[in-house]
Amino acid sequence: MHYPVVNKNGKIIASAVTNLDLHDISRAAKTYGVRAFYVVTPLADQKELVEKIVAHWLEGTGGTYNPKRKEALKLIVIKNTLAEVIDDIRENTGDAPKTIVTSANQNSRNISFKRFREMLQDGASYLLILGTGWGLSESFIAEADYVLDPVSGNTGYNHLSVRSAAAVMLDRLLGKKD
Amino acid sequence: MHYPVVNKNGKIIASAVTNLDLHDISRAAKTYGVRAFYVVTPLADQKELVEKIVAHWLEGTGGTYNPKRKEALKLIVIKNTLAEVIDDIRENTGDAPKTIVTSANQNSRNISFKRFREMLQDGASYLLILGTGWGLSESFIAEADYVLDPVSGNTGYNHLSVRSAAAVMLDRLLGKKD
Repeated sequence: MHYPVVNKNGKIIASAVTNLDLHDISRAAKTYGVRAFYVVTPLADQKELVEKIVAHWLEGTGGTYNPKRKEALKLIVIKNTLAEVIDDIRENTGDAPKTIVTSANQNSRNISFKRFREMLQDGASYLLILGTGWGLSESFIAEADYVLDPVSGNTGYNHLSVRSAAAVMLDRLLGKKD
Repeated sequence: MHYPVVNKNGKIIASAVTNLDLHDISRAAKTYGVRAFYVVTPLADQKELVEKIVAHWLEGTGGTYNPKRKEALKLIVIKNTLAEVIDDIRENTGDAPKTIVTSANQNSRNISFKRFREMLQDGASYLLILGTGWGLSESFIAEADYVLDPVSGNTGYNHLSVRSAAAVMLDRLLGKKD
């Protein structure tokens, strides 16, 4: 989600799309069997940028150079809003997904990774939502069905990139347990 | 490691440094309590580039803008070769570290994440080595003390970025178990 997210000062903004977010998160999604990777931004120029990058890898020289990358970037679907994402999933699966948001902050509604991992076995569709910038807005978080525990390491420092956080979350939720 | 790694055709090359590798991997290292993040390249222009980026965040406007980023990028140490990295660790800890390489391919010497997680409790220093490009060269892998299992998801697709792979590995090795 590139909107509604907050900036450094807590103000609601639309953040810019980062090229490597598209690559890294689609590769992680493909690795862990995620069905679609929605990139949400209401900004026309940002949507165009995403389309251009994806087209380079799907139809342009990128796909010939690196076919594996093509398989991953195929998962990308661009939408204006969360409502459009939910409509798209409803059209494809017959049902609206349950939404689960992620935040680097503790929230009284948090559920653990273990609990969400179990929920994923129930056959329903789940939409895992990550914010860019300084994170999803509070009112957006309040409207989600679930809030996932923050990814915490073993220190007080808790500032992973959205790319790293997405990969760690998918591994905890869908990766093979050793 | 940016050398010796292989390119798409299996030829040994020195790969280019990627700005976001520095940011993402240092943030993950800081999150999981890693002591140092060595960036290894023998190329003078690439070393200069890394120095410039790190200086921007440590001494320049970057550090004022985002002090949390500064804490992470402080972990970066630039070296020409693995031998120099090992010398640096020996100087700092009194002992040479045990080396453990990662590869997306299966290797007969592989150890599991669980096993390495246990080894990390023994008080010794370990140097976890990740390759860029299409991965570390075979002879480089053969010289390491240990080879870690590939990060596999739950599909046959196995093409995470080095940034994502580093984050997932640190989480599996040092993250809180739920």
